[in-house]
Amino acid sequence: MKMLSLIPLMLLAVLSMSACLNLDKQPGMCAKLPMAADGIVRLSKIEVYPEYLEEYINYATEVGEVSLRTEPGVLTMYAVSEKENPCMVTILETYANQEAYKSHIASEHFQKYKQGTLHMVKTLVLSDQVPLNPASRINNFIQ
Amino acid sequence: MKMLSLIPLMLLAVLSMSACLNLDKQPGMCAKLPMAADGIVRLSKIEVYPEYLEEYINYATEVGEVSLRTEPGVLTMYAVSEKENPCMVTILETYANQEAYKSHIASEHFQKYKQGTLHMVKTLVLSDQVPLNPASRINNFIQ
Repeated sequence: MKMLSLIPLMLLAVLSMSACLNLDKQPGMCAKLPMAADGIVRLSKIEVYPEYLEEYINYATEVGEVSLRTEPGVLTMYAVSEKENPCMVTILETYANQEAYKSHIASEHFQKYKQGTLHMVKTLVLSDQVPLNPASRINNFIQ
Repeated sequence: MKMLSLIPLMLLAVLSMSACLNLDKQPGMCAKLPMAADGIVRLSKIEVYPEYLEEYINYATEVGEVSLRTEPGVLTMYAVSEKENPCMVTILETYANQEAYKSHIASEHFQKYKQGTLHMVKTLVLSDQVPLNPASRINNFIQ
């Protein structure tokens, strides 16, 4: 095999490495732990007082971004609000294991969100869930 | 540069290519469309009659797998049920655009699920949502 014949293979390798970095490991996202047997799948249902909605969204967006970017055990933190009633917020939160959840709750960014939004939240229901299909996997990242 | 010195680079390239295939393009999953301006983010909330729960889960698992594997515009179909009350099912459904949704609704696998589970469903609420953070992206695949 001649040196010259290796060049296309090397180019392909470099291209495939960069595609890989762009697609499965988003820039600015930490590597993630696998979901363990003691992992958590949760729907957090929050009703926000209308006068605080905009401010609440800022807090929730910040804590979601920091948690997803920096915590290996925070697998999803996907927050949505109802089109017909934007004060009704649902967050799909998944944690790789119990330890990851404890570490998240103790983090500075979570405490900033929690203490900063206490007066904005009318009701909060944490509803633990079980995936119907154990083979279904979900990834969440900040683009 | 000697031929011999290229071998580690080539090995690394092959390894990185297989990591890429495993992580960002799961085997058996079709390529996905990007979320468009007319995309849909929805929480479907379903209460299932207890006597049909097991059968319902089989139908829901099948339609989720086929839709995620074969439909480029079905981005997520992540179904969970409450730990405390397994008859309460929530599905996070996201569709890349309106056309993708119409095509899903018309598909044979969706119609099999829909017609097959009509008598199992006590209540159904389709609640369209807006992500709080437009930069937050979510991927769903069958492992």
